[in-house]
Amino acid sequence: MGREFVVTQPSREPQQDRSRITRERLLSSTLDILAEHGWASATVARVAEEAGVSRGAAQHHFPTKEALITAALEEMFTQLTSMAESRAELPAGPERIRLVVDRAVDIYTGREFKAALQVWAAAASDELLREQITPLEAKFARAAHRMTLNGFDPDGTDPRAFRLAQATLDLARGLGLADTLTDDSKRRAQVVDTWTEQLTTALTLTD
Amino acid sequence: MGREFVVTQPSREPQQDRSRITRERLLSSTLDILAEHGWASATVARVAEEAGVSRGAAQHHFPTKEALITAALEEMFTQLTSMAESRAELPAGPERIRLVVDRAVDIYTGREFKAALQVWAAAASDELLREQITPLEAKFARAAHRMTLNGFDPDGTDPRAFRLAQATLDLARGLGLADTLTDDSKRRAQVVDTWTEQLTTALTLTD
Repeated sequence: MGREFVVTQPSREPQQDRSRITRERLLSSTLDILAEHGWASATVARVAEEAGVSRGAAQHHFPTKEALITAALEEMFTQLTSMAESRAELPAGPERIRLVVDRAVDIYTGREFKAALQVWAAAASDELLREQITPLEAKFARAAHRMTLNGFDPDGTDPRAFRLAQATLDLARGLGLADTLTDDSKRRAQVVDTWTEQLTTALTLTD
Repeated sequence: MGREFVVTQPSREPQQDRSRITRERLLSSTLDILAEHGWASATVARVAEEAGVSRGAAQHHFPTKEALITAALEEMFTQLTSMAESRAELPAGPERIRLVVDRAVDIYTGREFKAALQVWAAAASDELLREQITPLEAKFARAAHRMTLNGFDPDGTDPRAFRLAQATLDLARGLGLADTLTDDSKRRAQVVDTWTEQLTTALTLTD
């Protein structure tokens, strides 16, 4: 598009902004509803209500539940992946391991993971949905592993760090699942302590 | 019931047997369908078809999906709990730890767990279902922890064994979840190796 269209932008931009904000609000409400009330509740009408958006506006963005879920899926995994790619500074000392484990566990106990669980469960009876999730899930899993491995072994010298990073993420996933029915935070803190102790011994022994 | 009723049993028993077998077959098919095709597919009609039972007979046993799911839930957790309560002999040597980890992982990667995942996910939008699952899940979790702890520390002398047993079950749960979208058995075997190595060091160091 050439410069000659610039003149119409001032009046179009606010509308585009509003449209983008509405879309984001709808997607965020979809994740809330999936995480808190499950797959069956995540309808366009219910999401519109939760987001404070008119049903017509919601249907303009997402004409069907399928369209809404597809967009929410992208959003969910974009957020999970960017959590895993967090570049926040880690200290050099042994408390580094604890921070990395905490970060992994935070990813799997948050809203996005609870929403993802609902989509995973629904994908059991929906081939198309499964095909949509698999590459997104794989990309997220690689980012999470990279973050964890890099935290455990910044020099890349410990041959066991690769598998210990995998085990940590599997543990975190299991802790996330345990948190879906009831609040498991107290027990989880003790399990995280125990595993961090193990990791600290394992990763230090190799130095 | 007194002896005087014995005379009517020969003609009643086969029918009771047939009825019991039909019921068991329906429940087993419900677990198959939940595990393989998900919550939405587990209708009385679909289960009847899968079980090779007439729809009328299925509805006689389970008039509604709710009745079917309630019974399947009991069946699912009875089986999970009895797997966890397995009294199979364990060797005394270090290979004992590997066997216990394998047993835990087997529980969480089997059909019953995959079926349970579907019910858990559905329970997010179903308060009544959540109330039904919570005590069954807690009973199963206690049995699984007892089995694992007893395997790790038969004398009950290692103070860390309690938390390591919890962590092992969380890991197993995470591995089970990773296996629902794609076959994860190869990666899982390596994670189980690494985990077992960690446990063997941890549990032996305390002796």
